[in-house]
Amino acid sequence: MKHSFKSDYCELAHPSVLAALSAVGNAQFEGYGLDEYTQSAAELIRLKAAAPDAEVHFISGGTQLNLVLISAALRPHEAVISPESGHISVHETGAIEATGHKICTAKSKDGKLRAADIEAIIEAHSDEHMVSPKLVYISQSTETGQVYTKAELSAIADTCRRNALYLFVDGARIGAAVNSPDCDLDYADIAEAADAFYIGGTKNGALFGEALVICNKTLKTDFRSILKQRGALLSKGAAIGIQFEALMKDGLFETNASHANAMALKMANGITEAGYELLFPAQTNIIIPLFPNDAIQTLRQQYDFYDFEKTRTITSVRLVTSWATPERKVDEFLEDLRNIKQ
Amino acid sequence: MKHSFKSDYCELAHPSVLAALSAVGNAQFEGYGLDEYTQSAAELIRLKAAAPDAEVHFISGGTQLNLVLISAALRPHEAVISPESGHISVHETGAIEATGHKICTAKSKDGKLRAADIEAIIEAHSDEHMVSPKLVYISQSTETGQVYTKAELSAIADTCRRNALYLFVDGARIGAAVNSPDCDLDYADIAEAADAFYIGGTKNGALFGEALVICNKTLKTDFRSILKQRGALLSKGAAIGIQFEALMKDGLFETNASHANAMALKMANGITEAGYELLFPAQTNIIIPLFPNDAIQTLRQQYDFYDFEKTRTITSVRLVTSWATPERKVDEFLEDLRNIKQ
Amino acid sequence: MKHSFKSDYCELAHPSVLAALSAVGNAQFEGYGLDEYTQSAAELIRLKAAAPDAEVHFISGGTQLNLVLISAALRPHEAVISPESGHISVHETGAIEATGHKICTAKSKDGKLRAADIEAIIEAHSDEHMVSPKLVYISQSTETGQVYTKAELSAIADTCRRNALYLFVDGARIGAAVNSPDCDLDYADIAEAADAFYIGGTKNGALFGEALVICNKTLKTDFRSILKQRGALLSKGAAIGIQFEALMKDGLFETNASHANAMALKMANGITEAGYELLFPAQTNIIIPLFPNDAIQTLRQQYDFYDFEKTRTITSVRLVTSWATPERKVDEFLEDLRNIKQ
Amino acid sequence: MKHSFKSDYCELAHPSVLAALSAVGNAQFEGYGLDEYTQSAAELIRLKAAAPDAEVHFISGGTQLNLVLISAALRPHEAVISPESGHISVHETGAIEATGHKICTAKSKDGKLRAADIEAIIEAHSDEHMVSPKLVYISQSTETGQVYTKAELSAIADTCRRNALYLFVDGARIGAAVNSPDCDLDYADIAEAADAFYIGGTKNGALFGEALVICNKTLKTDFRSILKQRGALLSKGAAIGIQFEALMKDGLFETNASHANAMALKMANGITEAGYELLFPAQTNIIIPLFPNDAIQTLRQQYDFYDFEKTRTITSVRLVTSWATPERKVDEFLEDLRNIKQ
Repeated sequence: MKHSFKSDYCELAHPSVLAALSAVGNAQFEGYGLDEYTQSAAELIRLKAAAPDAEVHFISGGTQLNLVLISAALRPHEAVISPESGHISVHETGAIEATGHKICTAKSKDGKLRAADIEAIIEAHSDEHMVSPKLVYISQSTETGQVYTKAELSAIADTCRRNALYLFVDGARIGAAVNSPDCDLDYADIAEAADAFYIGGTKNGALFGEALVICNKTLKTDFRSILKQRGALLSKGAAIGIQFEALMKDGLFETNASHANAMALKMANGITEAGYELLFPAQTNIIIPLFPNDAIQTLRQQYDFYDFEKTRTITSVRLVTSWATPERKVDEFLEDLRNIKQ
Repeated sequence: MKHSFKSDYCELAHPSVLAALSAVGNAQFEGYGLDEYTQSAAELIRLKAAAPDAEVHFISGGTQLNLVLISAALRPHEAVISPESGHISVHETGAIEATGHKICTAKSKDGKLRAADIEAIIEAHSDEHMVSPKLVYISQSTETGQVYTKAELSAIADTCRRNALYLFVDGARIGAAVNSPDCDLDYADIAEAADAFYIGGTKNGALFGEALVICNKTLKTDFRSILKQRGALLSKGAAIGIQFEALMKDGLFETNASHANAMALKMANGITEAGYELLFPAQTNIIIPLFPNDAIQTLRQQYDFYDFEKTRTITSVRLVTSWATPERKVDEFLEDLRNIKQ
Repeated sequence: MKHSFKSDYCELAHPSVLAALSAVGNAQFEGYGLDEYTQSAAELIRLKAAAPDAEVHFISGGTQLNLVLISAALRPHEAVISPESGHISVHETGAIEATGHKICTAKSKDGKLRAADIEAIIEAHSDEHMVSPKLVYISQSTETGQVYTKAELSAIADTCRRNALYLFVDGARIGAAVNSPDCDLDYADIAEAADAFYIGGTKNGALFGEALVICNKTLKTDFRSILKQRGALLSKGAAIGIQFEALMKDGLFETNASHANAMALKMANGITEAGYELLFPAQTNIIIPLFPNDAIQTLRQQYDFYDFEKTRTITSVRLVTSWATPERKVDEFLEDLRNIKQ
Repeated sequence: MKHSFKSDYCELAHPSVLAALSAVGNAQFEGYGLDEYTQSAAELIRLKAAAPDAEVHFISGGTQLNLVLISAALRPHEAVISPESGHISVHETGAIEATGHKICTAKSKDGKLRAADIEAIIEAHSDEHMVSPKLVYISQSTETGQVYTKAELSAIADTCRRNALYLFVDGARIGAAVNSPDCDLDYADIAEAADAFYIGGTKNGALFGEALVICNKTLKTDFRSILKQRGALLSKGAAIGIQFEALMKDGLFETNASHANAMALKMANGITEAGYELLFPAQTNIIIPLFPNDAIQTLRQQYDFYDFEKTRTITSVRLVTSWATPERKVDEFLEDLRNIKQ
């Protein structure tokens, strides 16, 4: 069996999460997330984010979460600002447009949006013949594994406030971001900067499920109705609440993310020591090295991973580690890499 | 602790389902339902439904499934025909309308649609100033616990074919229906009559998840794209596939449903023996007895359940059993009922 | 040539309206309704409605106007309350649902909604599993030619205010309503009661075009953006503004409506004198008499009109007069009717 | 009064068009475009386009037409390919996205799309996580006044056919294009290449109205229903039919366009003779010269026009002529330009 570095959703769930589910037995609970497990998980998240007034909703997946939050926030003519490589713009099959809203994109090599990008888009949308940008979407960490610093996030948040824009942070990999050595901000900083953000469980130890944290009061209005309308209000909401309670207790969520980061960092160091370059600095659990195409062919015999940008001779590939990546597999990968003659 | 007869989603998951999830460990799998567990579960369902060419998709919840299937099937001006009490019409916060489509409803006391209802709606929608009905939505069993017989389903299917309408069967409680003593049809009969139907896991032993079975070739086209667009393509699709594999193997799904039905039937018999009437015959795991309001007040001290139709003196209440309902609780309920002086 | 009593859109435009268009010659004007003709027409309407702060927008047709206003007013989970026979519910091909919103209907024989209907719908929509009614839609006059009195409209408006609902009055035939002998309210009364209403030009002398009057400040926000998005912001907005200026000046709009009403009333009187009944009192330019089917067959040799409700022996038919209906045609119709042996 | 070169919608309607409307008097006609004027206009267009099987629909404006056609053609996950400057992408307030569909754009300096752009976008959209491009949108002439040649259009049409894409040509200025000295194709060539296109009346002599020509049989299905749903089926459809009958008879449509083109060409020649450059070759009724900013300031005292791209010293401006532009005003403009010291 090849080991897969394709993504951080390739293993099912952390044993503690499954154990928490099993521990419930046949105990009865309220439906639709009104149960005690879910309330407890929400409270743990509010504590972690130092956001006592935040509303927390648990949703089965990221695309669904993004479309529910964004369509709840916007009037028909309002639009989203996103980096060109934003997940909502490229990899969600037009989910946002399907709710009626345009995405205005800014070019970005590393997947990060800058305050100046936002200003430029605002300026270009001047009258009623154009959509009105109203919400800024960024990912922490980005699709290329990069993290926003406190200064970068503050600059974006300031620009949003000045222009009456909502700031929404996609946190599918927020664990990897916050636990990155290169990241100087925590959940509370994000909660303060953003009007809403989410804490991704699927890619950090949960069987499935994401926790949406709504900080801005306006965005809370009737949110459960909109969840229900989009098919996002699970009757057994407890199934996610129980998992997040397990992840948030005893630091499991952070332990998982730190392990994934450490594995990626080890890989990155080994790769550069072996003489190869990375497209971006190794900051979280995604690294993007450049390998000659024939080296890639050899590696593919033992490992699964995606190409990032392919050329005729050298290709960048995306390697992703997870909470479950065995250190042994990282060592084997580096050993195999060193054995390839350059 | 009060025992709840509010619904069949009040307990988490059958132990065998949780055991199947735990058994996977850290084994890696393909994302987005392309894994082997999911493929195996799909094959078991195709066998059960004697539908070798059917496409099977696993989706986290019923409202989401309904909106994905219906919006995939219809052009903008096309509409759904549903009984007035249909879940999509009343209890999904306008999810179908949110995808752009009107629901044309027919009055129905027991929640069943009749062929004549369909004909009447077709006839009333005659020109381009009205929507074009294109899909018929029914629930097997209905929200009131009633089952369609083979003759009833055939009459509906014939009407649909004659009028070029799709027939879609909401099977949130299809297990209870097929395993009802009053039901003379099985999964294969439904697969033959319907263009699409689903097998509900959430209410019959799964942690979460429904299995959509698409029989009509036209409806299969690009279905995964539409799943993704609506946020219904879980990255860890395996999480549902594993559960359905466990439910479909060794008859667990049918055992669960039969238990729920048996518990409801026992309750129904005890209730009529105690001198109370039922609004509809007891056919599946939902029964709707009529009790004097003061009897209801007494019962509510020990049990949770919903009112169905409230009047000043006598109210019908909805009692729902599940795969997990202990027979002891049924006995206690009946004992408590008998102790109430009429 | 048969004379048509099918509708009030069967003649092109009042000569004064066409003359006003021709008088412009090649004079240049600003695009998108920012021209002086449009501003002047809007001011005339604000004066007529005693609503100095109202925003007035000119839109090419009623269905488009309804969908723009309603979709601008509602969040995704919010719904419309309408009488069952409301134009938006039956005769607009699901235009409102196509913008994502459900219509909750109340039964009504004469097409009028009552305050109690609104209360009942509000009460039935109690939680997040159901849509949230937010806007009440009524037509003045109704599809059956009936008018709301001041007392009826006040009761509706009070109910709306108490329940934080918008009230929107479809005024496709508002001229006929306000100029009806049975109507005790004027444009100012409607402007005071409603959050928005419209003055229909198409059916009262214009070539095309309706004037939307927005009274509620909240509904005004970014309205031109939403007009543009729905394709309702004509580049030559002046083409409607010029027409409404002509209609509003010198009382032409009221003269047109009064003529249509007078013709319908004369027909109604002649019909009852000839021994036939009307389904509803003759109040505006639509009357619905009941004729034996063979009488209808004879009348159809000389006149065009629609059936309203057909039975095997007696059928109600809809007869509509307009600003252009020649009195001679009414006399001929009555003469022909009297000549039919009962 | 300043003369405006801001657009070709600044004058109301050609006198012959208004005369045709006035000639109708109080004659009655069928509603919703089923009248004889509309049928006759449709037939004249089918003849002009040598497309005897085409369906022709008359719609009040371009944005509305675009959104109706595109939303009728696509399933939920399907997308549009457009040049980045396409009207639907920039200047219609997200009208296409509001119907649920993403627009995939290609960079283009002159507003033209190339076959290679289409291929590149198709290649980049490879799986179900991305939208499926299904319709190509181009404008003939473009927003910068450029025309597609027969060879260019054929290359695009071939690419579309090979990839099962619809080709839709926005013809808001199709008259200017077809009557351009640089254009080697006529209406029949466009009808053959495209699955649908439109003939813009608003910008070429009509009071309002565009004629949509649907060539592909699939796109015709139930089209009137979708027109009605989007508020685009005028009850007095005759109001547009009469205008197009007047425009199509006796070559008025071509005369109007040729005059607009001739005026723009004369301006362009005068501008280059005066020593200024044009951003693009002068092909139709839009030209985009580059002037020093102080020259622009002087010209603005006498003339209205829009900036195209502004810099600190030299700015390109958009000058648009119409069927109504007096040659005298062109002469005056050039005289005034020559009087400005460079």
